Amino acid sequence: MRNTTLEKYVEYQPGLSIDCVIFGFHDNQLKVLLIKTPYENKWSLPGGFVPIDEDIDDAAVRVLKIRTGMEGIFLRQFATFGKVKRNDNHFGNAVLDHLKIPRETGKWLSQRFVTVGYYALVDFLQTVPQQSKKEELIEWVDHKEVPELILDHKEILDKALITLRNELNLIPVGYNLLPEKFTIPELQKLYETILDKKLDRRNFLRKITNIGILNKLDEKKSNVAHKAPNLYTFDKEKYDEVLKNGLNQGW
Amino acid sequence: MRNTTLEKYVEYQPGLSIDCVIFGFHDNQLKVLLIKTPYENKWSLPGGFVPIDEDIDDAAVRVLKIRTGMEGIFLRQFATFGKVKRNDNHFGNAVLDHLKIPRETGKWLSQRFVTVGYYALVDFLQTVPQQSKKEELIEWVDHKEVPELILDHKEILDKALITLRNELNLIPVGYNLLPEKFTIPELQKLYETILDKKLDRRNFLRKITNIGILNKLDEKKSNVAHKAPNLYTFDKEKYDEVLKNGLNQGW
Repeated sequence: MRNTTLEKYVEYQPGLSIDCVIFGFHDNQLKVLLIKTPYENKWSLPGGFVPIDEDIDDAAVRVLKIRTGMEGIFLRQFATFGKVKRNDNHFGNAVLDHLKIPRETGKWLSQRFVTVGYYALVDFLQTVPQQSKKEELIEWVDHKEVPELILDHKEILDKALITLRNELNLIPVGYNLLPEKFTIPELQKLYETILDKKLDRRNFLRKITNIGILNKLDEKKSNVAHKAPNLYTFDKEKYDEVLKNGLNQGW
Repeated sequence: MRNTTLEKYVEYQPGLSIDCVIFGFHDNQLKVLLIKTPYENKWSLPGGFVPIDEDIDDAAVRVLKIRTGMEGIFLRQFATFGKVKRNDNHFGNAVLDHLKIPRETGKWLSQRFVTVGYYALVDFLQTVPQQSKKEELIEWVDHKEVPELILDHKEILDKALITLRNELNLIPVGYNLLPEKFTIPELQKLYETILDKKLDRRNFLRKITNIGILNKLDEKKSNVAHKAPNLYTFDKEKYDEVLKNGLNQGW
């Protein structure tokens, strides 16, 4: 597996990078995995450049694996960002100076590079965030409390969230975000958090049940004072089928 | 406005192109605008390279304008294609030889370039397809009868169609595809053609009416034998509002 350092920059696809918006759900917060870079202490999305002999989708899988230890999870390309002014000399030079790469040698980093955005849904509790350099931090941040990000990373993050909200109308969401066993109120809370609005309890129950992806267990949630709610799991086979064919509501 | 010829190729963003899937609706067919290239007479999507000082979204607007004469119409980026093997020496050399550019000078064309896919919905009757070189043809082709395309353009076209089908669940579609005045059966036929399946008449009427984007006119369709159906227009203000905020069905 490749690493993401820049020392072999001549082998990278010119003018191209990827960025990953990695969502996790915990404490009723939709969290996003961010890196505190050594470059002016600004934060960034996890990402990297694309080796010349690597498919871009594979590059996203690699970054996700390196940063979370997770494989085979929900990961989708959602948009590509290619404004001329999205990166600039200032950022490029800060990176080059930090890496002690001569500015002339690494001047491609100051020219436009187009970035392909991916978003992933991961299990917060199973994820072990990995820093790739000792001078950086990697942390889960509530998506409502995101600090200033480098370049256009805030725009990329916002677009990923809009995409995720749209996806709720097209595919089931939750498999990688909730623990294996969960209650309907917990699932509803996930949807409410993503959509940032309250949903009607009965309506939600009816719609989520109609999709046919839930298995009701003979277990109730423990540690609950009274009227313990039932526990459910996703029927992974049916879940994957709906993920593939779409919710098919609508027309 | 720039043109799309390659002679100034040194000014292009390295390793990047865009491709446009331009849909039109006519004779109950969903048609796609294709170019018969001079390169081995294979067909391609309209597209081009991206000048180093042009935003990629602007490049798509430019290509659409050049190819259809149309501006300000529905145009969306939908996916980026970046497999290592998506282009190869064979195609690159065919283009270079045709343009009489030395292979060594233009070798970047034989290396991978990543392409950003856009799709557009245009009014078939208002579109005047434009060839950009005299050796090429540009034609509307029924999406079910697409000939062999260069590179991965078939994959790009298929993905655009899947995206369009998904969009029917998220936004209203029809404004750029139907004439200004249309009947509900015509609108239903458009949806059926895109989805490639029959829809229930009453169900469709109820759902499309509920969106609140239709104006019923005091006119009936002429040239119809008996029981002439009512004509409608889109309420453009409400249409644009729903386009912006989403259909908001679902949760």
